Amino acid sequence: MEASEFRRRGKEMVDYIADYLEGVEGRQVYPDVKPGYLRPLIPSTAPQEPERFEDIINDIEKIIMPGVTHWHSPYFFAYFPTASSYPSMLADMLCGAIGCVGFSWAASPACTELETVMMDWLGKMLELPEAFLAGKASQGGGVIQGSASEATLVALLAARSKVTHQLQATSPELTQGAIMEKLVAYSSDQAHSSVERAALIGGVKLKAIPSDGNFSMRASALREAMEQDKAAGLIPFFVVATLGTTSCCSFDSLLEVGPICNQEGMWLHIDAAYAGSAFICPEFRYLLNGVEFADSFNFNPHKWLLVNFDCSTMWVKKRTDLTEAFKTDPVYLKHSHQDSGLITDYRHWQIPLGRRFRSLKMWFVFRMYGVKGLQAHIRKHVQLSHEFESLVCQDPRFEICAEVILGLVCFRLKGSNQLNEALLEKINSTKKIHLVPCCLQDKFVLRFVLCSRTVESAHVQQAWQHIRELADSLLRAEKE
Amino acid sequence: MEASEFRRRGKEMVDYIADYLEGVEGRQVYPDVKPGYLRPLIPSTAPQEPERFEDIINDIEKIIMPGVTHWHSPYFFAYFPTASSYPSMLADMLCGAIGCVGFSWAASPACTELETVMMDWLGKMLELPEAFLAGKASQGGGVIQGSASEATLVALLAARSKVTHQLQATSPELTQGAIMEKLVAYSSDQAHSSVERAALIGGVKLKAIPSDGNFSMRASALREAMEQDKAAGLIPFFVVATLGTTSCCSFDSLLEVGPICNQEGMWLHIDAAYAGSAFICPEFRYLLNGVEFADSFNFNPHKWLLVNFDCSTMWVKKRTDLTEAFKTDPVYLKHSHQDSGLITDYRHWQIPLGRRFRSLKMWFVFRMYGVKGLQAHIRKHVQLSHEFESLVCQDPRFEICAEVILGLVCFRLKGSNQLNEALLEKINSTKKIHLVPCCLQDKFVLRFVLCSRTVESAHVQQAWQHIRELADSLLRAEKE
Repeated sequence: MEASEFRRRGKEMVDYIADYLEGVEGRQVYPDVKPGYLRPLIPSTAPQEPERFEDIINDIEKIIMPGVTHWHSPYFFAYFPTASSYPSMLADMLCGAIGCVGFSWAASPACTELETVMMDWLGKMLELPEAFLAGKASQGGGVIQGSASEATLVALLAARSKVTHQLQATSPELTQGAIMEKLVAYSSDQAHSSVERAALIGGVKLKAIPSDGNFSMRASALREAMEQDKAAGLIPFFVVATLGTTSCCSFDSLLEVGPICNQEGMWLHIDAAYAGSAFICPEFRYLLNGVEFADSFNFNPHKWLLVNFDCSTMWVKKRTDLTEAFKTDPVYLKHSHQDSGLITDYRHWQIPLGRRFRSLKMWFVFRMYGVKGLQAHIRKHVQLSHEFESLVCQDPRFEICAEVILGLVCFRLKGSNQLNEALLEKINSTKKIHLVPCCLQDKFVLRFVLCSRTVESAHVQQAWQHIRELADSLLRAEKE
Repeated sequence: MEASEFRRRGKEMVDYIADYLEGVEGRQVYPDVKPGYLRPLIPSTAPQEPERFEDIINDIEKIIMPGVTHWHSPYFFAYFPTASSYPSMLADMLCGAIGCVGFSWAASPACTELETVMMDWLGKMLELPEAFLAGKASQGGGVIQGSASEATLVALLAARSKVTHQLQATSPELTQGAIMEKLVAYSSDQAHSSVERAALIGGVKLKAIPSDGNFSMRASALREAMEQDKAAGLIPFFVVATLGTTSCCSFDSLLEVGPICNQEGMWLHIDAAYAGSAFICPEFRYLLNGVEFADSFNFNPHKWLLVNFDCSTMWVKKRTDLTEAFKTDPVYLKHSHQDSGLITDYRHWQIPLGRRFRSLKMWFVFRMYGVKGLQAHIRKHVQLSHEFESLVCQDPRFEICAEVILGLVCFRLKGSNQLNEALLEKINSTKKIHLVPCCLQDKFVLRFVLCSRTVESAHVQQAWQHIRELADSLLRAEKE
């Protein structure tokens, strides 16, 4: 395919995309297919000769769409939102065309420099402490990671490297293995599974701190676990505090946990994957109070800030903490400016070497929406979640299971887990809306999350009406 | 921005992209900017109010393009190619619009299933042994990773987990720390820096095996290192063999190294990041002989197979080796089909949780080019590299520094490193073409890599003419 055909096909694709997103509400949100549906629909080997574009594009509706879960349907209330906006898609098109690989400043200066400045823009939108911004004379700065999982892993590895160097400086006889065996990381029992995974990869212990009645990690529980571990000869080194947990969007107490981390010399990483976007609204910024105690902070604009996946933004107070943990410098990656101190080689900040020009998405989205437009998007979701909450509260058969702070409502039928599992099964097999569950204090709970950019009150009302009807028939069947 | 404006702006962007790529030859391949150029050109904070799209698109030429290294210019001969093709860009547009996050089968069945089938298509194009294909009853299969660095890390972590379980099964008193302290991984001294990094992250030792005169890892050197380590009480567990090293595109001897790994129960991972794409041509497939000894195999279609970044394809013989190393299963990610054995939850195969619908790019590219079209692309680059090689050979002032097998020519002026550093400095400051160096047996060497999809003989001839002229003036100045 040459440029002339791309001009034609690209424009057709633009229309296809606009049609898809304008019409997504009319598609069944969750697919009917069974595992293994796709393989019989396509050949078992690649074609030897080129095919026509028409045949490929026709196969999208025939083969792909029947197996798609439509994350951008206004009837999709599962997991957490994944961002989608037209400015972001336009930026991604440009990113693909420039197609640079930004592992070093020299590999494409614009790619590195726009990222640094966009991370400062976003940091300022969140009112992050100066120490996290790249600014002029700062030691900190931001980087775009692919996912919050990677950010957590990178933070844990940096913390592991830092504590290992510190311990070996005073006790040179300690081997890395001897140290690693004693290192302990902590997170709340509500933390995301990726924290467990980061510890697994990093080869260190992870202790889950029991959260309180509000599903929040508090000082007392952390301190107790830590003191026990210290008494047993272990070395506490890393704490992940979650702002907006996956199960119920609860918040660990940064103002309590932060000072302990600082006193004890433990690295504090904040995972605000979902909730972080809300902190651009002054009325939600208080949820980030205590960030000043953290060594690293991460959230996902690709969840709730209209920047398409992937864009997980991470800030550190001391960038050398990352770069010293990861630096390897072969000749083929050296360049003449790298020792100038003015520039950033982002490959030392992350797990992969290569990286796309992802800051273009941030630039397009921030400019096309403006801060006010982004705030309006957050506020709409929060308002709709409270609308859903009040609907649930009006029906005495149901209960709310966790405080509704942002765009997630945890609710259930008063009654057994079995009953609620049956309700969810009914909802997801009817496929008019899509939800996923969670488990809170051994209770099976339904999560209702505002996800789509285009979701409105009418969808929420319909969803609730639908849930009530399914509950009606379920409870009727139970009585019979 | 709503759908109607996206229809208009998207089409403008399609034209901008086509114009950019059609005209990229006319742009200076390497930018003139100095570190820090960008920050003064844009505001220090995000705008409060939305801006107009015109203003943003105008800033692309004013602010971004002056700082871009043009990886798709036919005068770009640096690093390795990064793939770019129109069908791939079209698929990426669609991927952004569907915008699903494919961490589990249920999260979007098409996303998972197309990936499995595309990995089989590509595996068959390479004539991989059946054991690596997902097929029907196989234990193996393929997954798209973000980069070869991640694939190496994932393989190392799986190998670490496997050997740890094996050792603990016979000696339950062994702690993970005690085992990790003894684990040793091996790779050639020519292996990519990401191997060193994977070992650093995994907390295991890495020994660099001295390569032979052809920059190839051979049996004798590996066996010697391994026997020494075993005698010292260490546990060899993991070997990375590189096919197509970054410095000079040399090949480790799989047929020698493979059997040793199998005999000794060491995991063999093959990193063919660049060279792998060439194995779709029957005349280069011999370079992959010995893959049958490997546990995992990886290469980057996003380098040389016209699939835009990121798309790093990895196959394993036993998928449970990966999934057992990474599995964590919270309630909110459980779904009704996951225990059926028919389906794949790719989140257990990789470091991040989230993942894009990247197999669409493979599907579009394989179908729009056909295997023959992809082979033609590989063959053109190899032919042009031999053309450049023969030009170098005709000039007695120059020497070829490593056998030219695929699309990379390592060459230098006969003489000091200083002289060659000066030549490269001249080349890269003139900015007519762009190259990066490497170091081979303490010699400073220039790497000439065929990168652009649109590079032709005329560009190679011009590049060589230009290098000769710069060498002329350099040698003249030396004599004076």
